[in-house]
Amino acid sequence: MHSSSASSTATTAVSEVDTTNTNKEEYKQCDAFFKEIPPHADYDESISRVQRFIENAGAYQRIVLVTSGGTLVPLEKLMVRFIDNFSTGSRGAASTEYFLAAGYKVIFLHRGKSIQPFTRSIPPPLESLEVSVGPCCLGGGVRVKSSDSVKVRKVLEKYSKHKDSILYISFESLGDYLWYLKGISSELNKRVGYRAVIYLAAAVSDFYVPKSEMPEHKIQSDVKPTINLALTPKMIFPLATLWAPKTYIVSFKLETDSGILMEKAEKALKTYQHNMVAANLLTTRKTTVTFVERTGKVARIDNPEEDKDIESLMIGFLQDRHTAYIQTNPSS
Amino acid sequence: MHSSSASSTATTAVSEVDTTNTNKEEYKQCDAFFKEIPPHADYDESISRVQRFIENAGAYQRIVLVTSGGTLVPLEKLMVRFIDNFSTGSRGAASTEYFLAAGYKVIFLHRGKSIQPFTRSIPPPLESLEVSVGPCCLGGGVRVKSSDSVKVRKVLEKYSKHKDSILYISFESLGDYLWYLKGISSELNKRVGYRAVIYLAAAVSDFYVPKSEMPEHKIQSDVKPTINLALTPKMIFPLATLWAPKTYIVSFKLETDSGILMEKAEKALKTYQHNMVAANLLTTRKTTVTFVERTGKVARIDNPEEDKDIESLMIGFLQDRHTAYIQTNPSS
Repeated sequence: MHSSSASSTATTAVSEVDTTNTNKEEYKQCDAFFKEIPPHADYDESISRVQRFIENAGAYQRIVLVTSGGTLVPLEKLMVRFIDNFSTGSRGAASTEYFLAAGYKVIFLHRGKSIQPFTRSIPPPLESLEVSVGPCCLGGGVRVKSSDSVKVRKVLEKYSKHKDSILYISFESLGDYLWYLKGISSELNKRVGYRAVIYLAAAVSDFYVPKSEMPEHKIQSDVKPTINLALTPKMIFPLATLWAPKTYIVSFKLETDSGILMEKAEKALKTYQHNMVAANLLTTRKTTVTFVERTGKVARIDNPEEDKDIESLMIGFLQDRHTAYIQTNPSS
Repeated sequence: MHSSSASSTATTAVSEVDTTNTNKEEYKQCDAFFKEIPPHADYDESISRVQRFIENAGAYQRIVLVTSGGTLVPLEKLMVRFIDNFSTGSRGAASTEYFLAAGYKVIFLHRGKSIQPFTRSIPPPLESLEVSVGPCCLGGGVRVKSSDSVKVRKVLEKYSKHKDSILYISFESLGDYLWYLKGISSELNKRVGYRAVIYLAAAVSDFYVPKSEMPEHKIQSDVKPTINLALTPKMIFPLATLWAPKTYIVSFKLETDSGILMEKAEKALKTYQHNMVAANLLTTRKTTVTFVERTGKVARIDNPEEDKDIESLMIGFLQDRHTAYIQTNPSS
């Protein structure tokens, strides 16, 4: 049996590092990436939607950018094949619902076809829908079976309450995602400042195929290919130091090897200078998440009930930490 | 404007080739693959379901195995990343509905989360569902909005009519897919013979990462990896010559380069010894499909109405060719 809710606060030293030398190189790598890979055709229109959403939210409103799902990396220019990862978007979709319930407005930057907030709890239509019968159902409508209707009704009511507080923006590729991350986080930094959270639940590819190594057409199947990957520039560092330094930034570390997880979480905070890492293991990510803060605080969240969302506990904890962050930055 | 329906029959020479020498090597490569990569834990149970499905269908029933969606190739043993392709399963899902309408029973071997028959035509729940109001809706049920209800009702009625004629089996990886293809096609050959169609709409990876080159844990993101891929053994040859020689086998060729499409379709028929190739280009695959038969006949299907499924025309054409095939093999 797990202990319930947030617990076991410990302190590890996450010291400041001198970043004056690394600055220029990290920024240059990002600039080079953005020069090589152009934004999506919808980029300008999407950023305009973000600006209107922030404006309509009004002053004093907290806003979170939730990134969700995996980024794909094309292997060909006219894309047929790509490298992807197993991320379903479950974490981001569930977290979005709890951020909304906590009073945040949410920019939901998600992989197309990934799991969606609210929709995730609605049973498949062929199992749950039936043609209406009986004297009061004129014209033969279609309804949700009574065994599912209470559950579906609750979801629809929650969605109806929050639907104006969520802005959906979708991406497919690593390039589209990174352009949106830069553009949206810059808007949040400028217009929302310390009241903004950036919650990086998307699983971003660590590698990509440079345009120079990409064939125009589908790789033919009679040659045995070798794929030379380039490293994706580490965008959290420019995010935290250049694009959105005022915002409260939470990144995720997912590993399969428990031996290196905490070490990697602490190293990420040192290297990227952001606010918090949520560390989890592939096999236990639905029952345990460990939050490591820049301040050195470590808090482990255990989910006592497997049929409940651990994100409910996670967002409650984060909301408190974000409140403390706003209070220490009173100019916001 | 396209010409309507099937048209323009031409003849190209698809000559028989001597396969006595290549036989052993092709079979050996498949055996080696199956030795390296074990079947899914559900394999035996799934094959039992196939056996019962065939048995319940009765004699004289035509049965088609429709494969649908893409196969993923893991890059790590405890999988986080994989190579995938853009296949949504749209072709296989639509074709399944028209095979059912044509009187076939369907074994739908599909990638998990790919597009599903019937479900594909139901609008998203958050847009189409509403809480019922009015005096006759006791207890506050949930119904499909009237603007969508006629369409959804038709889909539910079609599904209800055909749901006992379809067997769903899902896969994720290339290995799972190939094991199922071998197992199910062998059952069809033994029990259904010439009345069986194998319709290979799945997008099968041409490459995979051999177990020997796969790391145990997630590839770390601070090294620049090179992925050495091995060629997937060409399974259509053993399928057509060893596992299911009596069945009518249709494969698909999808290319982005129109200059090599027909040449590759004809080469596939020579090499693999199966019955038909459906050739299409990535950009026009929803409006034009060209069928190339072992006999040398070429028939181009053009879809005159973009809002209708081209699969309706494709399956009509295939049903006729399958009937002719059964008639030339009267022992079936």
